[in-house]
Amino acid sequence: MSPAEARRKEVPSDMTEAEWTQRINLAACYRLVALYGWDDLVDTHISARVPGPEHHFLINPYGLLFEEITASSLVKVDLRGNQLSKSDYSINPAGFTIHSAIHEVREDAICVLHLHTIDGTAVSSCMDGLLPLNQTAQFVTHDLAYHDYEGVALDHDERPRLQRDLGNKNHMILRNHGTLTEGRSSACIIWSGPAPCRCTPACWARPPIRSSRW
Amino acid sequence: MSPAEARRKEVPSDMTEAEWTQRINLAACYRLVALYGWDDLVDTHISARVPGPEHHFLINPYGLLFEEITASSLVKVDLRGNQLSKSDYSINPAGFTIHSAIHEVREDAICVLHLHTIDGTAVSSCMDGLLPLNQTAQFVTHDLAYHDYEGVALDHDERPRLQRDLGNKNHMILRNHGTLTEGRSSACIIWSGPAPCRCTPACWARPPIRSSRW
Amino acid sequence: MSPAEARRKEVPSDMTEAEWTQRINLAACYRLVALYGWDDLVDTHISARVPGPEHHFLINPYGLLFEEITASSLVKVDLRGNQLSKSDYSINPAGFTIHSAIHEVREDAICVLHLHTIDGTAVSSCMDGLLPLNQTAQFVTHDLAYHDYEGVALDHDERPRLQRDLGNKNHMILRNHGTLTEGRSSACIIWSGPAPCRCTPACWARPPIRSSRW
Amino acid sequence: MSPAEARRKEVPSDMTEAEWTQRINLAACYRLVALYGWDDLVDTHISARVPGPEHHFLINPYGLLFEEITASSLVKVDLRGNQLSKSDYSINPAGFTIHSAIHEVREDAICVLHLHTIDGTAVSSCMDGLLPLNQTAQFVTHDLAYHDYEGVALDHDERPRLQRDLGNKNHMILRNHGTLTEGRSSACIIWSGPAPCRCTPACWARPPIRSSRW
Repeated sequence: MSPAEARRKEVPSDMTEAEWTQRINLAACYRLVALYGWDDLVDTHISARVPGPEHHFLINPYGLLFEEITASSLVKVDLRGNQLSKSDYSINPAGFTIHSAIHEVREDAICVLHLHTIDGTAVSSCMDGLLPLNQTAQFVTHDLAYHDYEGVALDHDERPRLQRDLGNKNHMILRNHGTLTEGRSSACIIWSGPAPCRCTPACWARPPIRSSRW
Repeated sequence: MSPAEARRKEVPSDMTEAEWTQRINLAACYRLVALYGWDDLVDTHISARVPGPEHHFLINPYGLLFEEITASSLVKVDLRGNQLSKSDYSINPAGFTIHSAIHEVREDAICVLHLHTIDGTAVSSCMDGLLPLNQTAQFVTHDLAYHDYEGVALDHDERPRLQRDLGNKNHMILRNHGTLTEGRSSACIIWSGPAPCRCTPACWARPPIRSSRW
Repeated sequence: MSPAEARRKEVPSDMTEAEWTQRINLAACYRLVALYGWDDLVDTHISARVPGPEHHFLINPYGLLFEEITASSLVKVDLRGNQLSKSDYSINPAGFTIHSAIHEVREDAICVLHLHTIDGTAVSSCMDGLLPLNQTAQFVTHDLAYHDYEGVALDHDERPRLQRDLGNKNHMILRNHGTLTEGRSSACIIWSGPAPCRCTPACWARPPIRSSRW
Repeated sequence: MSPAEARRKEVPSDMTEAEWTQRINLAACYRLVALYGWDDLVDTHISARVPGPEHHFLINPYGLLFEEITASSLVKVDLRGNQLSKSDYSINPAGFTIHSAIHEVREDAICVLHLHTIDGTAVSSCMDGLLPLNQTAQFVTHDLAYHDYEGVALDHDERPRLQRDLGNKNHMILRNHGTLTEGRSSACIIWSGPAPCRCTPACWARPPIRSSRW
């Protein structure tokens, strides 16, 4: 057993093994996003559902860089935004609005990834959105929703419209803002195999070229 | 107390603790700008007001890369450009013109950040300037001034026009040249929390996309 | 003899020295592609022919990042896709279709490099393909084929069309997908000298500029 | 005296101190170009005149990456292309054509820097060349020549046309190929101060934006 595997077995006394595993996977996901340069300093969020019927989920402590986030520092919240784990940090209200909307209605959305990459933000600023111009984009475009910009997402009233616009799709362009992807597990995002959700951030990063073929 | 915190307590005998803190924060700011790739070799400047009524401010020794700048090597100058601290380096006259103009009239401008990022320079070269095409840009555009290019800023006569164009805004596009942001403290620029001035360089880096939505 | 040279002499008992050398060179090639940022997580492939009449070739174990690939972990397959070396990993069927098509008919194609770089994918999405706008592009355009996109390459029926479209060219744009280059040896790709196949990925990375000169 | 300074004093027995200093500076220049990502694998060249009336100059051994080049491995050549220093490597004939043309007629061109950066190659592929759209570009455009592309520069007959086109300018766009800058010393390129020749590669890297202001 490697030191990393041993660490996974050391479940803190105030949480279930399922939550601990989810925290480890989600923290690794934050680190990978930072490694690939998809982060935006302290902004954007990746959330992961804590297994169970309560729709509790984990989100980043607002104020840490993604490369600084650990399994222990992630904050557990409920759907009303109450912090259920002790932390020196609070959470970003705008991030809570978006992620709680998805976790409330999508039981399959175990992990929700929201990004402001330069390319993703540029595509979100284009009237045409993401065009199916190449194989990479087509992995996304057949399963892609759009949500119009309503200002910084501080108003919980936006949640029903986020839910309606996403519907049963797994990818969404937040117009004039950024991108959002949901996956079946947070582990799938860090799995070194061909997990579709691992590939999606790379898809968002691709610039669409308006070819005369379209 | 960490070694870094201990070092902050070792105030050199020829300056106040307030100046020493400002120097540490400003040097950290130079290092972060280099880390994020927003520097331009030895060019552009970040300045920080030394607390007190004299409008003294700190600026980089001309000839050091941003990654080489230390709290001790920063140069203290007055509004006439006299160097008030001993240094093996002089300062860049063009940088002095721009930064002294802001420090002279804006009491709230504790830290002034001027950059030549590729994206910021490109936006400054566009007739339309920065368009409010996405959330990141909108954090800036509601508080944005423009100053026309008059050649390399060696002429102190340009200062009243810089002051008039900036007015009470916190961001300014120096047309055909680059970008400028002022913040309430130099610490706010390195604070790992959601300080607006920390986010602004990232905003400048975003390419505007002329969408048919506008 | 350096440690690296000594390692080359330690041929595993279940393979020929020629196969071992090919594995070392191909693994180095995967590492260089990762080093230069031309990889796409676990996707795209580089294959190398094992010397001999059987048209056996080596390809990456699907699930490892390019930077993780070693001489020992490469998978040997025949033209029907049977894995001839033990591995904990399988291979990517879509990658097999493309690479087996080339290795079947091109005896001179010792090494086949397929990439999804952002620039290469963008060029592949343009109606005009790669234009001979500069010296770097011209190293490729005089020897360049095009293959239309038929969806993810899971259908072996696509192989004759890949073979026909490539003909006797050494470079091919896979339209709406990416780029493909074949070379005379996998060693030539990692040779630090002026091997043409080493230079080609750099060529693909160049954006075409539609100049009014053309 | 630092170890680096001490090393500068250890002049090899088969050369003058002036040549040794030039070699150290030029090797540092190759390393910096690699550090800033302006290199093109083994291609493009930086040359430096050896002090003296013979017009001898130093150029890179063809086959080494820029990050691998040392003061000792640089090759000394005369204006006919004869290698005057022992080396396991030869030189690139195309590079010799361009650099010997400049060193033959420009006594002030101590150091000649030729690059294929992506941005520089893109600008060289545009009909308009480099436009004076911002301060950075204007540092170059007032002193900029153009040379039309004649194919890979293997023909020494191209040298008079290179000399005529450069004239007394210090910067030249090699159309459809790349960029060229000459400086008064190779040391000036690595000097950490405000040497203009240090800034020029950064200038070339800037994309021109066709503003409606022009």
